[in-house]
Amino acid sequence: MILDRIQKENDIKKVEPKDYKKLAGEIRHFLVEKISKSGGHLSSNLGAVELTMALHVFLDFPEDKLVWDVGHQSYTHKILTGRKEQFSTLRCYEGLSGFPKRKESDCDVCDTGHSSTSISIALGMAVARDLEGKTNKIVAVLGDGALSGGMAYEALNNAARLKSNLIVVLNDNNMSISENVGGMSTYLGKIRTNRKYRGFKYDVEQALRRVPKIGDAIAEQIRISKESLKRLVIPGMLFEDMGLTYIGPIDGHNMEQLLTAFESASKLNEAVIIHVVTKKGKGYPKAEKNPSKFHGIEPFFVKTGESRNQSKDESYTSVYSHKLIEMAEANDKIVAITAAMPSGTGLLSFQDVYPNRFFDVGIAEQHAVTFAAGLALNGYKPFVTIYSTFLQRAYDQILHDVCINNLPVVFAVDRAGIVGKDGETHQGIFDISFLTSIPNMTMMAPKNKLEFEDMLDFCQNYNAPVAIRYPRGEAFDGLSEFREEIILGKAEWIYKESEIALLSLGSMVKTADTVRKILKEQGHKVSLINARFICPLDKEIITEIAESHSVLVCLEENIKSGGFGEHVSQFVLEELSEKISILTISIPDIFVEHGSVEQLHLKLGLDAESVVERILKRI
Amino acid sequence: MILDRIQKENDIKKVEPKDYKKLAGEIRHFLVEKISKSGGHLSSNLGAVELTMALHVFLDFPEDKLVWDVGHQSYTHKILTGRKEQFSTLRCYEGLSGFPKRKESDCDVCDTGHSSTSISIALGMAVARDLEGKTNKIVAVLGDGALSGGMAYEALNNAARLKSNLIVVLNDNNMSISENVGGMSTYLGKIRTNRKYRGFKYDVEQALRRVPKIGDAIAEQIRISKESLKRLVIPGMLFEDMGLTYIGPIDGHNMEQLLTAFESASKLNEAVIIHVVTKKGKGYPKAEKNPSKFHGIEPFFVKTGESRNQSKDESYTSVYSHKLIEMAEANDKIVAITAAMPSGTGLLSFQDVYPNRFFDVGIAEQHAVTFAAGLALNGYKPFVTIYSTFLQRAYDQILHDVCINNLPVVFAVDRAGIVGKDGETHQGIFDISFLTSIPNMTMMAPKNKLEFEDMLDFCQNYNAPVAIRYPRGEAFDGLSEFREEIILGKAEWIYKESEIALLSLGSMVKTADTVRKILKEQGHKVSLINARFICPLDKEIITEIAESHSVLVCLEENIKSGGFGEHVSQFVLEELSEKISILTISIPDIFVEHGSVEQLHLKLGLDAESVVERILKRI
Repeated sequence: MILDRIQKENDIKKVEPKDYKKLAGEIRHFLVEKISKSGGHLSSNLGAVELTMALHVFLDFPEDKLVWDVGHQSYTHKILTGRKEQFSTLRCYEGLSGFPKRKESDCDVCDTGHSSTSISIALGMAVARDLEGKTNKIVAVLGDGALSGGMAYEALNNAARLKSNLIVVLNDNNMSISENVGGMSTYLGKIRTNRKYRGFKYDVEQALRRVPKIGDAIAEQIRISKESLKRLVIPGMLFEDMGLTYIGPIDGHNMEQLLTAFESASKLNEAVIIHVVTKKGKGYPKAEKNPSKFHGIEPFFVKTGESRNQSKDESYTSVYSHKLIEMAEANDKIVAITAAMPSGTGLLSFQDVYPNRFFDVGIAEQHAVTFAAGLALNGYKPFVTIYSTFLQRAYDQILHDVCINNLPVVFAVDRAGIVGKDGETHQGIFDISFLTSIPNMTMMAPKNKLEFEDMLDFCQNYNAPVAIRYPRGEAFDGLSEFREEIILGKAEWIYKESEIALLSLGSMVKTADTVRKILKEQGHKVSLINARFICPLDKEIITEIAESHSVLVCLEENIKSGGFGEHVSQFVLEELSEKISILTISIPDIFVEHGSVEQLHLKLGLDAESVVERILKRI
Repeated sequence: MILDRIQKENDIKKVEPKDYKKLAGEIRHFLVEKISKSGGHLSSNLGAVELTMALHVFLDFPEDKLVWDVGHQSYTHKILTGRKEQFSTLRCYEGLSGFPKRKESDCDVCDTGHSSTSISIALGMAVARDLEGKTNKIVAVLGDGALSGGMAYEALNNAARLKSNLIVVLNDNNMSISENVGGMSTYLGKIRTNRKYRGFKYDVEQALRRVPKIGDAIAEQIRISKESLKRLVIPGMLFEDMGLTYIGPIDGHNMEQLLTAFESASKLNEAVIIHVVTKKGKGYPKAEKNPSKFHGIEPFFVKTGESRNQSKDESYTSVYSHKLIEMAEANDKIVAITAAMPSGTGLLSFQDVYPNRFFDVGIAEQHAVTFAAGLALNGYKPFVTIYSTFLQRAYDQILHDVCINNLPVVFAVDRAGIVGKDGETHQGIFDISFLTSIPNMTMMAPKNKLEFEDMLDFCQNYNAPVAIRYPRGEAFDGLSEFREEIILGKAEWIYKESEIALLSLGSMVKTADTVRKILKEQGHKVSLINARFICPLDKEIITEIAESHSVLVCLEENIKSGGFGEHVSQFVLEELSEKISILTISIPDIFVEHGSVEQLHLKLGLDAESVVERILKRI
C-alpha cells in the first residue's frame, strides 16, 4: 500500500508521480470503507481526492496555508496529515471531527463548518503574510456551491486589490449539497461544457499573438481591442472583469494538469482563481449516480448503498414536509423557500407538487429571508425553511427586512438544539437568543408531532413574523392526549400539581415528562407545563406557577445567555412580588463539540437523570 | 413653479418634457434649502433627481413598485408623492422619516435603511406578481456602493432565473458614502470612462447584423461566435455572463436617455440591469466637490457649506481615532478594518498614517469580520470598526469565524445605543443581545472618555474576541477622577452607600450619576457602580450589592430582551440566596423611531427624571 507510507504531512512528496493513480484509488477505498461504518460526508470527499493530493504535493505544511471552505471535504487532507489511524473515531464523541480543527493538527488553519468563508480567511492571512514580509503560499478551496453565497463574492471583490499571490481553487462539481442554482451556476456550466474553451489562459494569449492582423475595416467597425479579443477565447472573463486572474477549466482528477495550474498560478503577484472540474462521488458508482444522497450519510452497506440504520421513526422534518403540502393545497398563498437544502429540510416533495411555489436560492440565507420579505409584501405567505445554525447568517435580514416591516413570514427553524456529529459549527443552540431579541418576532416550539402540525396551522394564520423551532431527528409522539388549542402567547398545562413546576420548551417536554416520573416516584409533587411560546411569554401562567409552587424549573435546548430561562427569570424578578426560586436547565455558554446527541445531552446535563439530580440539589 | 403643480404621485406625468430641466432645478433648490436647515442626506439625493423624475414618469403609482436600496436617496420620491409640505419635519420626532416608510405613503413599498437588500425585495415582489398573474412593473434602484454587499450578488444570481420583467437600476456615482473599493468598482469605472462603449445593447446588436462576414481564417482561428462578437462592443458582459440583461451606461441626468432605457427594459421578460451614471451632489457645487462630507450632514449654511452646529465637543469616535493611532505606533500588529465607513468611524486619519494597515472592504460586513479572522490567525490584531446596526449583518461571522476559533479580534462597536434621526433601521440597540449570546465573547462599555482609552488598551492586550460599545456623539468627560485599572470581568465602585444600587453600563453611567444626585437630594442612600463588563458578569460585585442594598437598578442603552439587565437577573435569581429586587432600565422590546437622541431617551424613559420616577415607584 502506498498509503501506508504516508504517515504525516509532506510525506506525499516522496510518492512518485506514476503512483498517484494507485494512491488515489487507495484513498477512495479507505474513504468508502471508513465512512460506510462511521457515516459522514462521502460524495464531496471522493470528488476531491486528486485535488487534495495535488495541493499536498504543491504546498509545504505547515508553513503554507490551506483553507477549506465549509470543510466537510477535508477528509483526504486529514488522511495525508497523520490522522489516518483515527478515522474510525470520525465524528464520534472525542474523536476526529468531520471538519477542520486547529487542535487536531497545525495543518488545519481554521475551524469551519459554514459556507463561503474561505476566501475572506485566506485573504486576511495573505495580507498578514505580506505585512510581515513573508512569502508562504496561501490557498483557499471552495466548491461552486459556496460561490452562491454573497460573502464569497465580497471576498473576491476585495481580493482583486491584492498585489501578492493568493490562490483560490474553485472546485466545480456542479452541485452544492443538491443541484446548484442561479446565474453563476449556469455560467460555470457553460465554461465546463464548452470543450473548445479548454486550455490555459497563457496558452491562449500565446495563440493570440500568432493571429494575423485583423482586417482594418472589421476592427474599426467592431472596435476590436486586444482585451476584447481575449474575451473570444478565454473562459472565466466574468472573474477577469472582477479583477481576478482566471485559469481553467482544469480536470480536477488529472494530477499533472492540477500541478501545472498551481505552479503557474503561484508565479503571479495577484489573486488567481483556478477553476477545477471534479465529479462528486467519484470512484463509488452509487455516489456518482446519486451524489446528493451520499453527501452527508449515515452508516451504509458498501455493496448496496443502503443505510445500516433501519429506523423508520418519523422525523420532525418529514412531519413538516407533509403538513406544508397539505396547507399549501388549501392556501395558494403559501410558498416555500430554502437555501440549498431542499432535501435536508424536507422540501423536495413540496417542490414536486408545487414547483412554481418552491424556491431554492442556493447557499444564500440573507437573500432567502429578504426575498421572502418581498413575497410577503405582495401578499404571499413564505415559509423560510433553514437550519438553525445557518439562519444565523440572516440575523440582520430577519430584523431589518422582515421584523421592522412586521411581515407575515414563517421561519421554520429545523435542526434546532443539539444536532450531534457535525459539532461546534452546526449546533442549533443560538436561535432563541438571536430571534427573541428582535421586536415583532413571535417564537414557539412544539412538544410533539401533533402540536407541531397545530403550530404550523397557527403560523399559517398568523399575520406577523413567527419562528418555529424543531429538532433534528425523530418526532416525539407521546403526550398526544394533550392537545389544547394553540393561542398566541399561551402555555399549556400538562400536569397540574404543586411543589416543583417543570416549565418545559419544545424537545425538552419529553425529557421533562421523564423527569417528572422519576421525581414522582420519589414522592414529589410535580407539575409539567408545556411552554409552547418563547415570546411572547405567558406571564399569566408563570405568575400562577410562582404563586403555587416552590421551585420553577425552565428547560430548553438553547444556550443560557439570551435563552428562554433568562426571559422567564427577568420577568419573575422584575414583575412578580412572589420570588419563586428558578432553576434553568439550558446549554451552558460554550460551543458544543461533536458526538451523538445522547452523549452530548449527557455531557451538558440535559438528560433526565442529570436534570433530576440538579433539581434535587436545588430543593 | 412647476413643482407647485405636483401635489401627489403621478402628477409629474402632466409636466411637459421641455419643463423637466426646470423641474429638476426646482427640486434641487428645494432639497438644498430644506436639508440645509434640517440636516439629512444631501449628495445622494441631488444626484438622483432626474433618475427619480424619470422613474415617476415611467411608473404608475401605487400599482407599480419602486424599491429604493438603503433609502436615503428617496427624498425626491417623497417630494413627488405628496410629502413636500412635510419636509420641514424631516428626520424630526414624529416628522417625515429620512428613509422610505410604508406608513407615510403607499408609494413606499418597504421600510429600509440597510444596504444591498433592494434586489431581493424586488425579486420577491416580482415572483409574487407573476404567481398572481399580474403584470405591474417592479423596479429596484441601488447604488454602486450597495453592489459591494454580497447580498446584492446573491439576489442577482437568483434574478437571473426570472422569466418575467424586473428592472434593476444601478445608480453608479462611483461612491458609496466614501470612495468605492474593489474589483467590481474598478470594472464599473472602466465601463463608465470608456466613452466608446456608450450606446444601447440593442443598437449594438443591430450594428452587428450589418458587419460583413468575417474572414473564415480568423473566425476559425479565434473561434468566433455571435456570442463572442457581442463581447467586443458591449459593456456589462459581467452581468450578461451572470444571466442578466445589461443596458447602459446611461447618462443619469438625461431624462430622454433614462426614459428610453426604462421603456426598452420593460419590454423584456427577464431581469434587466440598467447602468445609470450620475454625479453625487449634482447642482450644489460644494457637494459635487466633496460628496462624502455632504452625504449625511448636520444643518449647514448654504452659502459656505459650513455646519450650523458649532459644537466642538470631542466625540467617542474621535477619541477612538486618536487612541488607535497611538496604539498602532507602538504595536505594529494592529490593523484597522471598516466596511465603507472610513470617515464615520474616525479611521480616515488612521488610513493617512498607516495606509498599509487600513482596510476599507466596502459595504461588506460579513467579509470584514472573517477577513479580520484571517489576519488574527496569522498573528495580527484587527480592530473591526463598524456601527452597531451594521454589525448585525455579521452575526454568524462573529460567531463562526471569530469566536469558535477564539481569535483576538477587537470589535469597536460605534453608534451603540440610540442614534437619533436615522430611526428604526439605524438604532444600535441590539448589540448586547446578539454579541453576548456568543460563547468566548467578552464585551464592555466605557463610562467616559478616559475609560474608553483604558479599555482600548485592555483590548489591545486581550488575547480573545472582545467587543467595546460606545455611543454616537460627545464623549462624556465627567467622573474622570474614577479611573481604576481595567480588570477582566470587574466592575468599578464609584459611590458606595446602601439602599439603592445603580449598576450602570457605558453611556448610562452619566445618567445614573444625575439620577443619584436627585435621589440623594431626596434623602436616599444611593450607590453608583460602573458595570464596565457586560460579559463576563462581575458576579462578585452583584453578590455584594445584593447583600447590602434593597434594590438593584440596572441601566443600559440596549433592548431589554437578551440585554445586560436580563443577564444580571438570571444570575441573581438562579445563583444568589439573597433575592434583591431588580429594576431594569433598558429599551423596551420595540423598534425605536427617529427623533433627537434626547427626545427618544425621554420617550423611552431613559432620561434621569424618568429613571428617578421609576425607582421611586419601585421602592
